[in-house]
Amino acid sequence: MAKRGMSQSILKIDTNAIYNNWQSLDKKSAKNVETAAVIKADAYGLSTKNIASYLAFKNVKTFFVAIAEEGIGARKAVGNDADIFVFSGQMENDAAIIKEYNLIPLLNSADQYHQFQINSPNQKFGIQLDTGMNRLGMEGIEFSSLDENMSNACLIMSHLACADEPNHSQNLKQLRTFHHLTDDLKIRKSLSATGGILLGPEYHFDLCRPGIGLYGGLPYDTALPVIKLSIPVIQSRTVFAGETVGYGGQWRAKTDTRVATISAGYADGLIRAIGNGQLLLYHGDVGCPLIGRVSMDLITVDITQLEDTPRSLDLINKIQTVDIIANAANTIGYEILTSLGARYAREYIKG
Amino acid sequence: MAKRGMSQSILKIDTNAIYNNWQSLDKKSAKNVETAAVIKADAYGLSTKNIASYLAFKNVKTFFVAIAEEGIGARKAVGNDADIFVFSGQMENDAAIIKEYNLIPLLNSADQYHQFQINSPNQKFGIQLDTGMNRLGMEGIEFSSLDENMSNACLIMSHLACADEPNHSQNLKQLRTFHHLTDDLKIRKSLSATGGILLGPEYHFDLCRPGIGLYGGLPYDTALPVIKLSIPVIQSRTVFAGETVGYGGQWRAKTDTRVATISAGYADGLIRAIGNGQLLLYHGDVGCPLIGRVSMDLITVDITQLEDTPRSLDLINKIQTVDIIANAANTIGYEILTSLGARYAREYIKG
Repeated sequence: MAKRGMSQSILKIDTNAIYNNWQSLDKKSAKNVETAAVIKADAYGLSTKNIASYLAFKNVKTFFVAIAEEGIGARKAVGNDADIFVFSGQMENDAAIIKEYNLIPLLNSADQYHQFQINSPNQKFGIQLDTGMNRLGMEGIEFSSLDENMSNACLIMSHLACADEPNHSQNLKQLRTFHHLTDDLKIRKSLSATGGILLGPEYHFDLCRPGIGLYGGLPYDTALPVIKLSIPVIQSRTVFAGETVGYGGQWRAKTDTRVATISAGYADGLIRAIGNGQLLLYHGDVGCPLIGRVSMDLITVDITQLEDTPRSLDLINKIQTVDIIANAANTIGYEILTSLGARYAREYIKG
Repeated sequence: MAKRGMSQSILKIDTNAIYNNWQSLDKKSAKNVETAAVIKADAYGLSTKNIASYLAFKNVKTFFVAIAEEGIGARKAVGNDADIFVFSGQMENDAAIIKEYNLIPLLNSADQYHQFQINSPNQKFGIQLDTGMNRLGMEGIEFSSLDENMSNACLIMSHLACADEPNHSQNLKQLRTFHHLTDDLKIRKSLSATGGILLGPEYHFDLCRPGIGLYGGLPYDTALPVIKLSIPVIQSRTVFAGETVGYGGQWRAKTDTRVATISAGYADGLIRAIGNGQLLLYHGDVGCPLIGRVSMDLITVDITQLEDTPRSLDLINKIQTVDIIANAANTIGYEILTSLGARYAREYIKG
């Protein structure tokens, strides 16, 4: 929105940190290995428009989206020169979008492949193989059944199910299956997202495609933090010992407590499950406990230790990262990022 | 987006059912009690633009948003005649928006009140009292300290912390406190959202302000269902006994299983916590179990019982409501609604 008052939270997104994360992930693979960028789910909730355009400006050449419709915004963001791959392939009625926006579908089944040959002859495509995750991509037997017309195939890829767990036996198993299915092919190959990059060079092939690592999340534990979330304080009050706070009256003051009410809630992606007493709201380096249930638009905070009521408190910063928030809610950083809502004033820091 | 292929899920929103829910909630209070509509958080995730405009067209006269910035879109949706109240009041720098879009702040503290008198003399306002939730609104003692200039006050309201639990002792306590603080005032009064409406007429005062009940959620258990979510099937495969599906390889097939991969995930608001084996994906009336972890853009489903692979499966319908989804994720329907993502093709049914 064009105007901003003081009841709107501010989400600062460090686009330059995203590019720095891309650079450091790029350095983990050999020079002849390309590093792409996954920008599905509106660049993990942080805005394809703002982030993909910056990465393209910085010379990232290849992008990945989840569905064809996302390719429309992605194409507008990255200009006409970059490649944009579509993980879900080309589904019925997708052909027009795929062609108009010059997207490259990653065909996931023999059926998709045959339809593509009929509907979109002479267009570029990729192949997604399933090497054991049993989620998306052709099975080996399905892939072997295809005819030999691979001249327009520009990428053959698969996805690891357990790359976040380096010692999981499925990683090596999927690597072997991928080799078995693709070693004879003269098509560029890709197996790894962020987790796979960290598994080592034998997982890198011709192209790596980091997603979460760009946006500052685990498993890339040396990523630069990318976001900061500051939430305005609407008011504060003294809650006397024995009184309760919030829905269900579930938090009860043991002693007189100074409580601030801040202007964000689960409708802003601060999922209800974070309201379990583990998280802090920061005034500079001082952390104040989140108390009571998270409501739709509001969160309550014990600010007894602060001398004055601050104008805002930070939920996400360099101390309390997206993964710490995720851990408190028993989920993963990916979900916290992609849940960040539409009601924030978003500020993009560019280098 | 203007174009739609087949990899995009379809969220159907029955605007007419929302209006029907408004009508039946309106009938629960006496004729001289006005029924407003809460449209904060983009009308609980379902679009202020589409829903508030329809309700205004149907003659709903009063709306509530959470923060001043939401009032901009709300004003555009409802036209110039309706009243729009802002729960967070008028915070620093909000004065211009409040004035330009003719919003009515619900002042939450003596400080907000005094600032408003200085910055916005002669404008209408409301007062939000805290009657025991200790979250938002003036304390009784704070309210009593105000000077007597209430001539521009057009509403005095409070919010119940435990209205979803009719037998909770806090309801009656808050009712008494509200009476105590407001009985002498000649200002219109409001205490109840959906839960309070259901508590009975003594909670209704001059204006009720339902939110969740309009959108088909508990505690209004006879609300008409409002949304239907259909998710396209990208592909299907046979997973043989002993094989695993999805991230972490956590779901393992006991027998040969036909698995469909469908095109939506937690980035679409289908929160990861639903992936615990309780939910079904519907092909007509036939429910097929959700299996494996929910990923960012994809969900896997056991469709063994279906003869053919369907083109899409329904996650939310009249059988499996928003509250059933919420229950599986150990949360509330409000959170499921407000999490519904931006990647759906949204279709609005109007009566």
